[in-house]
Parts: sequence; structure tokens; C-alpha cells
Amino acid sequence: MAEENRKLAIICSKGSLDMAYPGLVLANSALSYGIDVVMFFTFWGLDMVTKSKMNELKISPVGNTSMGMPNALAVIPGVTGMATSMMKGKIAKLDIPPVGEFLDMIVDAGGQLYGCKMSVDMMDLTKDKLYDGVIDIVSAGDFMDMSEGAQIIFI
Amino acid sequence: MAEENRKLAIICSKGSLDMAYPGLVLANSALSYGIDVVMFFTFWGLDMVTKSKMNELKISPVGNTSMGMPNALAVIPGVTGMATSMMKGKIAKLDIPPVGEFLDMIVDAGGQLYGCKMSVDMMDLTKDKLYDGVIDIVSAGDFMDMSEGAQIIFI
Amino acid sequence: MAEENRKLAIICSKGSLDMAYPGLVLANSALSYGIDVVMFFTFWGLDMVTKSKMNELKISPVGNTSMGMPNALAVIPGVTGMATSMMKGKIAKLDIPPVGEFLDMIVDAGGQLYGCKMSVDMMDLTKDKLYDGVIDIVSAGDFMDMSEGAQIIFI
Repeated sequence: MAEENRKLAIICSKGSLDMAYPGLVLANSALSYGIDVVMFFTFWGLDMVTKSKMNELKISPVGNTSMGMPNALAVIPGVTGMATSMMKGKIAKLDIPPVGEFLDMIVDAGGQLYGCKMSVDMMDLTKDKLYDGVIDIVSAGDFMDMSEGAQIIFI
Repeated sequence: MAEENRKLAIICSKGSLDMAYPGLVLANSALSYGIDVVMFFTFWGLDMVTKSKMNELKISPVGNTSMGMPNALAVIPGVTGMATSMMKGKIAKLDIPPVGEFLDMIVDAGGQLYGCKMSVDMMDLTKDKLYDGVIDIVSAGDFMDMSEGAQIIFI
Repeated sequence: MAEENRKLAIICSKGSLDMAYPGLVLANSALSYGIDVVMFFTFWGLDMVTKSKMNELKISPVGNTSMGMPNALAVIPGVTGMATSMMKGKIAKLDIPPVGEFLDMIVDAGGQLYGCKMSVDMMDLTKDKLYDGVIDIVSAGDFMDMSEGAQIIFI
């Protein structure tokens, strides 16, 4: 079990499938260790908690040297979809839930989810378009309050 | 107001418009809460404080699945410029200043800006090419000193 | 010298040459200041400690607006290789070691390296394919234990 009052504040700023999971996995692990978790979704990270997008996150082989695919091939229509399907298959095979279910688990375990006001405004979103588990839309200043004494992780 | 001596050390390693703003917004919010802020610009993040580039940062729809643009379309000449103009418009509409002005605000509020020596050397830069508010060019070791006791955020 | 028990926990999630070095440089600097360092390699970051890949990391000019290369040009076969060679040349010129040697230095200085179990499973890797200095393959929960009281940096 964690030291008393240990807290993790995770800023999720990316909306790709491969950069969504690290935040979800860290949040879930921390909660299971009795660590308080606040997640702050900002910029592209809002996609992770946008109802119409959260289960449709993609992975792009373009510009990702680790996927070992020549860029000239990776830009061909359909390749992003193919790479996304492959990664989703690998994730499911490891019994890791899709994004929406993973968020449910995190909320059930006590994780606190917030959307970033500036990003919500920039993307013309409203609270009703966000995942129901998002507590509120707050400012970066509010995040400063919430993350006092926390280990901050920016993804 | 923040607990006494709360400190944020933000490492900015990206030079794209969308990854420049999170650091600026967090720094500015922290300062307005009385939190000490050190910003360390390294690798591509040096673009944020390079005079000739800081107000010309771009956003690339290629390889960014959140922008929802097929890569085959996103690589067409002019599309990066178009996406950049659109995002700059949205930022301005929210009364968020351009990068240069935002840095002025942060410096005026007491934020401390440093360039990374290794990156400056790698990119053949010199201090006079950097934004005037950059206090000094320092090593990663110096950053270790400055970030003692801080919450570290790597962007 | 650092305050007693200062600890840095670095999560490396990227496998590109430009995002591998920040973690290596920070780890190395921290160790030279007497700070404890744990490195946790996850997702694409596993490439940094995969024997067959760690000295073949690449940099992609596609989707990287800081490299100033039009995407339509950057996707041409051979351009990624050319950009990679250029950056490797600049790194060598600054007397910064290649990834494998840099890891040796970090391990010799007491840095503790761990692979992420979920990512290892996802990528069908086994411990023998990883760099010998990797102590073990551990879960995100184990990382929570190791990072208690640490400054966490997610790259």
C-alpha cells in the first residue's frame, strides 16, 4: 500500500490509441495501490473522453519510426485503419479493456476525471458530449489546486 | 495560494504549436497561483524560444490521428499551413496570446526560462538567437539543481 | 549533491532517436548528482532496450514541424534514413555516445532499468531479446512501488 496521501495527477494530451493506454494503465495501477488519481484531459487528450471518439482512437504508422513502416507506404489510405485493428487485437488478446470500459473501471475505483476548459472551448465541445464519468470541465488553475502535492505525469 | 515553496519545473521538448501551448498555459497558471516556475527548453522545444521561429510554430495533421485527416491528404503541400492557420484562429478567438507574447507574460510574472546547452550546441544556436527572456543556457546537470523539490513536467 | 533520497523515475514510451536521448541525458545527469534513477521502458520505449533495435533508432521528419521539411518531401523513401544519419552525426560530434553505450554508462552509474510487462507481452518480446542491463520485466503496479516519493518524468 502507498504512503498516506500519495497522489498522482495525470495530464492526458494525446488522442492516439498508443498514447491513450499509458495514462489508463498508470491510473488503474495507482488506484489499485491505494493512490489517489486525478486525470486531466487536455488538447487531443479530450478525444479519450469524447463519447463519439473514445472507442474509435487510432494509431498512425506515419511518423512513428518504431512501427518500422516506410512513410511512403504508411500514408496509403487504409494503412492507419489496418495498424489500428492490429493493435486493438493485441490489446484485447492481453485482456486489456477498450478505452470506454477502462474509463469505467478507473471511475469505479475512485479515479477523478476532469476536462480542460480551454481545450473544450477550442474544440467547440460541451459537457454532454463528454464521457459521463467526467466530473467537470475545469481551468488549468483548478488543475494546479488539484495537483498540489501530487506526482504529475504529462502524457 | 499554493503551499510554501511549491515549484514546477517544465521541460519543453516539442516545437509544434499544439505541444507548445500546454507548457505555456501550465506555467502561466502556476505563476498566478504563486507557484515558482522554471522552464527548460530542450531539443525541438528550443523552437519555442528561438526568435526566428517562436511565432511561426506549426501544427502537422500528418501522423496526428486526432485531427481526423487521412495521411494521404495531409501530406499535400499547403495542408500543414492551413491546419496551422485554423488552430491559430481558434487560439486567438479564445484571447490566448501568440507564443512570443505568452512568454513575455510568463517572464513578467517571474517565470524562469533556460535553454538546454546540449540542444543549443546540436542545433548550432547561440544565446543571441534566443528570446531575450531566456536567462541562460545551462546543462542538464544544472537543471537537476534547479528542479530539486519541484514537480517535474516533461512535454 | 542532491537532498538525501532524491529519486527520479523516468518512463520512456517513445522509440525515436530524438525522444530516446532526453531520457538518457536526464538519467545520466541525475546519477552524476547522486540522485537515484529508475527507468521504466514501455510501449515504443522498449525499442531503446531491445538488442536488435537500440542502436538503430530513427528520427522521422514526417509530422515533425520542427524539422522544417514539407511532408510531401519527407515521405520520400530514404529521407528518414538521411535525417537519422544527420542527427547521429551531430550527436557524435558533441561526444554523446550512441544509445547502447549510453545505457552502459547509466547502468554502471547505478541506474536501474526495467521493462514493462504489458508492453513486452504486446510486442511478443522476451527478456533475452532485451539489453542485458535490464534488471527485470515488471508490471505497472511494480512501477508504482518503485516510484514512491520520486519525481516522475514521462517521455
